[in-house]
Amino acid sequence: MASALLAEVLRGGHVESVHTGSVVVCDPEGAVVFAAGDPERAAFPRSAIKALQALPLLASGTADRFGLTEAELALACASHSGLPIHVQTAQSMLHKAGRDGTCLECGIHWPSSASAARALAAAGQTPSALHNNCSGKHAGFICTAVAAGQDPAGYVGPDHATMRAVTGAVAAVTGAALGAEDRGVDGCSIPTFLTPLRALATGFARFGTGRHLPAEFAAAAVRLRRAVAAHPAMIAGEGRFDTEITAALGEAAFVKTGAEGVHAGALPSLGLGFALKVDDGAGRAADAATAALLLRFLPVHAVLERWSRQVLTNWNGLAVGELRAV
Amino acid sequence: MASALLAEVLRGGHVESVHTGSVVVCDPEGAVVFAAGDPERAAFPRSAIKALQALPLLASGTADRFGLTEAELALACASHSGLPIHVQTAQSMLHKAGRDGTCLECGIHWPSSASAARALAAAGQTPSALHNNCSGKHAGFICTAVAAGQDPAGYVGPDHATMRAVTGAVAAVTGAALGAEDRGVDGCSIPTFLTPLRALATGFARFGTGRHLPAEFAAAAVRLRRAVAAHPAMIAGEGRFDTEITAALGEAAFVKTGAEGVHAGALPSLGLGFALKVDDGAGRAADAATAALLLRFLPVHAVLERWSRQVLTNWNGLAVGELRAV
Repeated sequence: MASALLAEVLRGGHVESVHTGSVVVCDPEGAVVFAAGDPERAAFPRSAIKALQALPLLASGTADRFGLTEAELALACASHSGLPIHVQTAQSMLHKAGRDGTCLECGIHWPSSASAARALAAAGQTPSALHNNCSGKHAGFICTAVAAGQDPAGYVGPDHATMRAVTGAVAAVTGAALGAEDRGVDGCSIPTFLTPLRALATGFARFGTGRHLPAEFAAAAVRLRRAVAAHPAMIAGEGRFDTEITAALGEAAFVKTGAEGVHAGALPSLGLGFALKVDDGAGRAADAATAALLLRFLPVHAVLERWSRQVLTNWNGLAVGELRAV
Repeated sequence: MASALLAEVLRGGHVESVHTGSVVVCDPEGAVVFAAGDPERAAFPRSAIKALQALPLLASGTADRFGLTEAELALACASHSGLPIHVQTAQSMLHKAGRDGTCLECGIHWPSSASAARALAAAGQTPSALHNNCSGKHAGFICTAVAAGQDPAGYVGPDHATMRAVTGAVAAVTGAALGAEDRGVDGCSIPTFLTPLRALATGFARFGTGRHLPAEFAAAAVRLRRAVAAHPAMIAGEGRFDTEITAALGEAAFVKTGAEGVHAGALPSLGLGFALKVDDGAGRAADAATAALLLRFLPVHAVLERWSRQVLTNWNGLAVGELRAV
């Protein structure tokens, strides 16, 4: 099936750029409730499935054993901005497992927030792996490995016991095969698997409702959703899509962005999950289209309207155009 | 006519994202020598036509009157990274006209180079309009206005005498109408006009050869091309497309990137000009597709091969995929 037009950018009243892609909304049984484009389109979910990858951290009893806080559980699902609070929280998780930032295998980059990066430089510092936007997820992997008596070294590899448990959890929740032939390496070095959007949406419908969710993950899913809803600043950062939507909607919606224009999440009260892929990988289009999708299913909210139809301003603050979901 | 596939992003051997668009190569008479997608597609050229917008600076005698250097002329065509050398050069241009950075109407942003932005912050400073990537072009406008005895205030407006001369030059070189109904406001607040790619390519064929170029711009075009070729670091910055291609190819190619995936330029020795628009606005695809286009017409060069087919690495430096022109 062909892609659909998801968003367009206007300047001076003329269309300047367009974004196509596919979006699907499913129930926990896998039935398609809404679709635009191709619901069977496969995409690398990248960071959009961090919450599913965090399920073994709770299901294994690790989170309770180490006394992880709600904020720490939220950070395990996050693509964070690299602010001091994110760095401190990741460090705290590692300390509870008797480890530190040197165990992280996600790589080093400057904080994804430009202002956080400049603040770090202004303090005369350089980033560590704790600033990597995935450091909370990786700290969770290390906690899981340590609690199971494993050597966490090499945990990013597809054959490490912890990573096998993570991949197994995602496969069990989504119903997707996640075979080696569909495997790529993510930005933070863990495996990422081509997955049909319909399977992702179905998995998040299960994550949001507990229905058709493997029994060992039912309580874990509820705790992760509540943790993120209670700590929206942990899931991303100030001004970013996930944080703003979560702060506004709370437990009514679980949303998570991923690289290359993949977004996924759940609408728990409606018993639905969704997944979306922008063909060209543009996050701006995925943000706008996801906001428009939520507006289709949830009551009107100013934050959703603002993200689905954004006024574009230039360096003088002049309104020069618009980014809008179609 | 439909768009063509211009570039794709691979991960783990699978296509993760794709970019479509249109590209056209013309001779100075406007004949289409090569096309993929729709050669008549209209696009806002944004920064891709800065060199054409700089023609009045030379044709009016302003550059000679104020003794602008080759590096300063190159900066007038640039979307620079905001490095100290760029800031100093823009400031020097303004000083020669008896003005300073407070006259700039392009707006303020942190240097587009992330490392330059962090260095500025580390020095305890904040950016001025001189750091705006367009400050060289704007300094050229102010010089032109002052030399003509005009008040430069409001020079970004479409009806200011200097901006009328700039728009008139672009219209004369490209043959495009550039009417008010096709006008948008650019990121730096000057007008930008929807222009068919074929007209842009034809204009750059004229800019590169002098053929069918209005007589008053012939010498100016040669000087601008030579200035940029002699100062590739001025047109953009270290590691960036325009700078790397220009440093490698010298006067054999003139290339300029614009926002929202528009690139344009000239192959002077072949008597050709080109223009390209990526439908979704992605610069990464425009870079790769332009490099592949140059490889089609010019001798093989390692820099062109590297930009047309880029290995994508993750935060640990692992090769995880590829961005390649199609």
